[in-house]
Amino acid sequence: MASTAATLKDVAQAAGVAVSTASRALAGNPVVSQETRDRVQHCAEQLNYRPNAQARALRSSRSNIIGVTIPSLVNPYFAEMASVIQEEANRAGMSTIISSTSEDAERLIDSLHVLGDQRVDGIIVVPYNGTEESLAALDATGMPLVLVDRDLPGNEHLSVVSDSSSGLHAAVAHLLEKGNRRIGYLSGPMTTSTGVTRLAEFNAACASLHLEDQLVYQGGYHREDGYRGTEWLLSHDVDAIIAGDSMMTVGALEACHHNGVAIGRDLALIGFDDQPIMRLQACPITVIDQQVSSMARLAFSLLHGLITDNGHGGSSPPASLRTPTTLIIRASSDFDRSSTTDKEVRP
Amino acid sequence: MASTAATLKDVAQAAGVAVSTASRALAGNPVVSQETRDRVQHCAEQLNYRPNAQARALRSSRSNIIGVTIPSLVNPYFAEMASVIQEEANRAGMSTIISSTSEDAERLIDSLHVLGDQRVDGIIVVPYNGTEESLAALDATGMPLVLVDRDLPGNEHLSVVSDSSSGLHAAVAHLLEKGNRRIGYLSGPMTTSTGVTRLAEFNAACASLHLEDQLVYQGGYHREDGYRGTEWLLSHDVDAIIAGDSMMTVGALEACHHNGVAIGRDLALIGFDDQPIMRLQACPITVIDQQVSSMARLAFSLLHGLITDNGHGGSSPPASLRTPTTLIIRASSDFDRSSTTDKEVRP
Repeated sequence: MASTAATLKDVAQAAGVAVSTASRALAGNPVVSQETRDRVQHCAEQLNYRPNAQARALRSSRSNIIGVTIPSLVNPYFAEMASVIQEEANRAGMSTIISSTSEDAERLIDSLHVLGDQRVDGIIVVPYNGTEESLAALDATGMPLVLVDRDLPGNEHLSVVSDSSSGLHAAVAHLLEKGNRRIGYLSGPMTTSTGVTRLAEFNAACASLHLEDQLVYQGGYHREDGYRGTEWLLSHDVDAIIAGDSMMTVGALEACHHNGVAIGRDLALIGFDDQPIMRLQACPITVIDQQVSSMARLAFSLLHGLITDNGHGGSSPPASLRTPTTLIIRASSDFDRSSTTDKEVRP
Repeated sequence: MASTAATLKDVAQAAGVAVSTASRALAGNPVVSQETRDRVQHCAEQLNYRPNAQARALRSSRSNIIGVTIPSLVNPYFAEMASVIQEEANRAGMSTIISSTSEDAERLIDSLHVLGDQRVDGIIVVPYNGTEESLAALDATGMPLVLVDRDLPGNEHLSVVSDSSSGLHAAVAHLLEKGNRRIGYLSGPMTTSTGVTRLAEFNAACASLHLEDQLVYQGGYHREDGYRGTEWLLSHDVDAIIAGDSMMTVGALEACHHNGVAIGRDLALIGFDDQPIMRLQACPITVIDQQVSSMARLAFSLLHGLITDNGHGGSSPPASLRTPTTLIIRASSDFDRSSTTDKEVRP
């Protein structure tokens, strides 16, 4: 009886293979050697392992629980995302369990195992590059999956991401129009699609506007990265800074506060995501708004569709849905750089 | 085989009784009538229900997953709490699943059922008054439980709460010393121990300092409550406002920003919890700091003790551990009310 609690992870451990390999072996995938397939199958039988998809089919009803993995609890953007998904789930009569992955791919893989072993009906995932195998393994068990905020290379799942190119282009054009020439960019990590895409979009916007004197700080989605990057960019005399996510924007705010840099006069600052901390500043912060509520609602609606499809789906092709971003201009960037320079020149 | 997934909730529904009653009935508790006990027992057998404690004993090892319920994801205080608990759990080789209860007792009861049905080794709970029965029922299944942030009347569990009396007394004394006479208080909800206790402590501090002209706005732990309460208190000419939690402090900030009230000159403001949004203000906000990281670490350490006790415990008496609070004085309250009044009098 104890063996009914055996998980795919248990089987993989017993067979001495990765979870993704065990999953493929049990699915009869020929990329796994016959010997390994036999060993995994034997371990699964010994442990009386029953894969989730089968277990779900045997259950009289769904659990009405969905899983959500987010990279950080203290990032207000992801907190709002998870909160909206939960509201939508509740409206649909479902409960939500949330897992935070601390911007760490290994932790996400752990979280997927944990959620995969639970009685959840589906999972909304913010992925990292390098987690493709684990997601494929979960997919192979029949678990409905929707990616949100970030995509994966060669994505094989439904995903909802924001199209930041419009917002970033508008931000660079706005800074240029206000007389800023040297723009610094705080870039997110290259292990995320958002980090990679936004940096490319920033460079493309600068190129199309014939701006050449740009500086990029290669950071991560943490306050500390935004803080260090801002100090570094300031030491290189930038006129303006665009921060590539909300946590780095908060770090930029902290660096300016601590170094006595007057935002909206000494420095033009544009951040990401319209959170209270951006609005509640003496000089409110211009932001590229991803409309996280819309993304979260769309992601839940897609997952709900997969779950209630009762197995008629599976044929729906992977698709990446893109929601628009907008630039909300506020005092932090809405000042004329040439006129302030004039003022400084006068004694 | 499908029936192994039957939960206590399923049994309760089949028997037409509350989950807590079903739990007591199965435990042979004589407060439940013999007839009900028989009916519940019969339904449990029909559904092949196996209570968690038994199921846990049958498992060869623990799941190494703990559950955490917090009232809100977008409240930075609770986000930090859950984040620190997760860090501690990871350090101990455990994963965490989080459930947000939207400041709603019914949702917490749902979350406890969800977590109780999962393979979790223990749960850290931020409770509401009115959830005592559900917690007792979960306790009866042998699930290790630790309450954090809030207590319950006649608490029968281990709990970690902050002692806000020192912080609130220091806050009132500080406002008085600075010449504020009319202090408004934004109170939390009476369905939480923190709401009840902090209001009593505020009143006690005022009484001991012979301050009589106080105004209390009965709010809740939401930004909207802080916003409305601040506008109401301002319309009643208060010199100073103490906000009873971090979300109401953010609401108070918003109300002052939108109404052109200069914090640190027109109004003295003291908030709760030392979050970035409090520090990153043109006029940084004085706060009563609950040192949420310490509370979170202590809560995890207690839960870990219960889990690794391997059944030798159960005899450990319920205890409420209190962590200290401190007043961090900043510009929002650190100005002399009489001198600013003088300034206003001069033309």
